[in-house]
Amino acid sequence: MKLSNVAVIGVGTIPVKSSSGKSLSELFVQAAKEAIEDAGVSKIDAMYVGNMMSGFLQNQEHLGSLMASALGREGMPTYKVEAACASGGVAMNAGVKAVLSGLDRIVLVGGVEKMSDKTTPKVTAGLMMAEDRLKVATTGVTFVGLNAMIAREYMHKYNVRHEDIAQFPVLCHGNALDNPKAQFHKKITVDDVLQSPLVADPLRLYDCSGLGDGAAVLVLAPKEEAKKFTDTPVAVAASSVATDALSLYQRKEVTVFEGSRRAANEAFGRAHLAPSDIDVLEVHDAFSVLGVMALEDLGFTGKGSGSKLLLDGQCDRDGKLPINTFGGLKARGHPVGASGMYQLAELTLQLSNRAEKCQVPNATAGLSQSVGGIGSTVAVHILRRS
Amino acid sequence: MKLSNVAVIGVGTIPVKSSSGKSLSELFVQAAKEAIEDAGVSKIDAMYVGNMMSGFLQNQEHLGSLMASALGREGMPTYKVEAACASGGVAMNAGVKAVLSGLDRIVLVGGVEKMSDKTTPKVTAGLMMAEDRLKVATTGVTFVGLNAMIAREYMHKYNVRHEDIAQFPVLCHGNALDNPKAQFHKKITVDDVLQSPLVADPLRLYDCSGLGDGAAVLVLAPKEEAKKFTDTPVAVAASSVATDALSLYQRKEVTVFEGSRRAANEAFGRAHLAPSDIDVLEVHDAFSVLGVMALEDLGFTGKGSGSKLLLDGQCDRDGKLPINTFGGLKARGHPVGASGMYQLAELTLQLSNRAEKCQVPNATAGLSQSVGGIGSTVAVHILRRS
Repeated sequence: MKLSNVAVIGVGTIPVKSSSGKSLSELFVQAAKEAIEDAGVSKIDAMYVGNMMSGFLQNQEHLGSLMASALGREGMPTYKVEAACASGGVAMNAGVKAVLSGLDRIVLVGGVEKMSDKTTPKVTAGLMMAEDRLKVATTGVTFVGLNAMIAREYMHKYNVRHEDIAQFPVLCHGNALDNPKAQFHKKITVDDVLQSPLVADPLRLYDCSGLGDGAAVLVLAPKEEAKKFTDTPVAVAASSVATDALSLYQRKEVTVFEGSRRAANEAFGRAHLAPSDIDVLEVHDAFSVLGVMALEDLGFTGKGSGSKLLLDGQCDRDGKLPINTFGGLKARGHPVGASGMYQLAELTLQLSNRAEKCQVPNATAGLSQSVGGIGSTVAVHILRRS
Repeated sequence: MKLSNVAVIGVGTIPVKSSSGKSLSELFVQAAKEAIEDAGVSKIDAMYVGNMMSGFLQNQEHLGSLMASALGREGMPTYKVEAACASGGVAMNAGVKAVLSGLDRIVLVGGVEKMSDKTTPKVTAGLMMAEDRLKVATTGVTFVGLNAMIAREYMHKYNVRHEDIAQFPVLCHGNALDNPKAQFHKKITVDDVLQSPLVADPLRLYDCSGLGDGAAVLVLAPKEEAKKFTDTPVAVAASSVATDALSLYQRKEVTVFEGSRRAANEAFGRAHLAPSDIDVLEVHDAFSVLGVMALEDLGFTGKGSGSKLLLDGQCDRDGKLPINTFGGLKARGHPVGASGMYQLAELTLQLSNRAEKCQVPNATAGLSQSVGGIGSTVAVHILRRS
C-alpha cells in the first residue's frame, strides 16, 4: 500500500490547561471520544498512545490498557509509544505503519500529558529524562539550560538578536487569541519577551513554552475507506522519524538539528514535494530559538535567517507561509507527549477547512515537526487535502 | 504483504543477572550488537525498544535515541514502546508492522530492563505502574499480592493444590540448568517451593520470578530477503496483541485471562494453526499460577487442568509440548521489559536448531505469550521454521 493511502478521518483535542483537575485517563478519554465521534466510527482495530512522563510524574505506565479500559473498549490491541517530547509525533508514525501493514484498518493515535499535579522542580527533572541521565542530567543542567546554550551559540554564530528570535512567541501568542482551546490568550510584544523574567540566560519567560495538561487524538483509516466516514479526509503524504546523537555534547554543531534535516529530507522525498509546496506549517517551538531554527533545518530558509521569514507578516495566517496557526507550543500549549498530536490535529483541521477563526486560505499541503529531546528525535509529517 | 513474510534473521541475548553492574544502554547495546552480528546486516532501517520502568527507576526516557546513539547509529528512526511486562512482546508487534508497512526493511526490535540499582520496595512500587495508580495502587496492594488473589481463587475454584501449581517453577528451574544465560542455576523440588518463604499468601518465594537486569534483541527482515542473511530464517506466522479491563476488580472472572484468549484466537486464525500444531511454547510465568493458567487460556488444555499437562514429563524438552525450554521467566529471569523478547529469541533458536543444550527435537512451530499487568495486555506470537 502506498503511504498516501492512509487518511485522517477524525480529530479530537481538548483545551490545554495549566491545571486541568483531570486524571491522565480523563484527559485522554475526552479527546478520544471527540475524535471517535468526529470520525463516526464504531470499531477501533488498534490504538497507540503517545506519552513521555506518566511513569515519572504519575507513577502510571501501561497507558494502552488504561486508556482502552477507560474508553470502555478493553480488548483492543494497544500500547504506549515514547520519544520524549516527540511522543505524539511517533505515535502517529506507529499508527500509520499499522494501517499500512494491513493488520489494522481503523487506528486511533493519540498523545496525552499531565504536568500540573507535581511541582515545577519535579517536572523540570522529568523533562531531563529526554537527555542522558548518567552523563548529562547528573550535572544539574536543566532542559531549558541546554536550550539556552543553543540560543547563545545561535545568536553569536549568525549575528541574530534576541528581538529577532522573540518574534516567534509574539506570532504564536497572536494566533492563539483565535483558538479557544489554547492555554494562553494574551497578546504579547517583542518588548514583553525581552523584559520578561530571565529563566536561563538568554532565554526569558516568554521564550519558553509553559507546563500544561492536554490530550489530542486522531483516527486513521485506509484512504479508500475514508470517504465512507468523512467528506473531508486528509491524506498522510509522509511520516518520517529520524534521530541525532542523543546529547548536545556529542554534536559538532549545536545550531543545526540534523534530525530535522534527515526527517524532512525523507518526508519531502516520500511525498514528492518541496518546501515551496507547503501551505501551512507547525513547528516545535518549545523555546523561541527552536521555532526559528526549525524554519532553517526543515528547508524553508537558510541558516541564520529563520527570523527574517517572520518579518512583514509572511508567516501570519494570511501570509505566504502560515506558521503555528493555532498558537504553537508556546501559546496553544506544550503538554509534551500530546504536542505532536495537537500539531497533526490542527493541520488536519486546516486542510479540511474546519479551522474556524484560525483558518488559513487555500491550504492543500501541511507539514508538522515534532521534536524529542535536544533535537535528538524528530518526527516530520506531511498531510495533504485529498 | 502477508504476515508470514516477515522473518527473524538474527538474535542477541545477554545473561540475566540479579545485579549486572551495567547501565541501561550497556545492557541493550551488548544484546543489539550480538543480534546485528548474528544477522550479518549493516544498515538498520528502524528500531523499537521495549521497556517498562526506565522513567521510574532510572529517571531515563527517550530510550530510542539513547540506544541509537550508544550503538553509534544515530540518525535511525527509533522509539520506545511500552505495555508494562509485555513491553518486549509489543516491541515485536511494532517491528512486524514496520516491516509489513513497506516503510522499513531491516528492523531491530529489543527489550531491556534494569531492576538491580534500586531497592526492592522501589521496584515493587514500579511494578504497580502496570495497574491503575489512582484506584488500585493507592490501596497499598502489591503486584504479587494481586497475583496471590488470583492463585487463591484459582486453587479454590478448580480444586487445584499448591503442589500441582508448584510443578511449573520446578520445570523451569530444571530447564535453566542447561541455559548458561539463565539467572538461576539451581535445581528445585516441589517441596522446596512449598517450604520457601511466604511472599503473599499463598505465593511463596519459588512461585515468583526474581528481579534482574537483561536485554534481548531480534533483527527482522522481509522473508524474501532473509535468505541473503541467514540459512535459518524463522518466519513470523502471527503477531497479535489484545487487552482486557486494566484492573482485576473490573473483571467478572479472575481465573481466566480474556486477553490471552483473544490474542491466541487471533494468532491461531492468522497463522492457520491450532494448539496441536505448536511444538514449543514460551509462556509468561511471572508467578507459578500464571504459567499454569496460560496453558489453559491459550487453548492447550481445559480450565483447571493446566498443571496436569506437566505430569509425566509431557512438558519436558523431550515431551509432547516442551514449555519454557530455557527456564522461563522464573529461572531464565524476568527483566520485565525484556522478557517478551527473550521468549522470541529462544523460540527462534529452537526453530533454527541453534538452542544447543536446550534444543528440543523437530520443532517447526512455536508460540510465545507475553503478559502486561494482571493479564491486561497480552502479546501472542507464532513463529515457524521457514
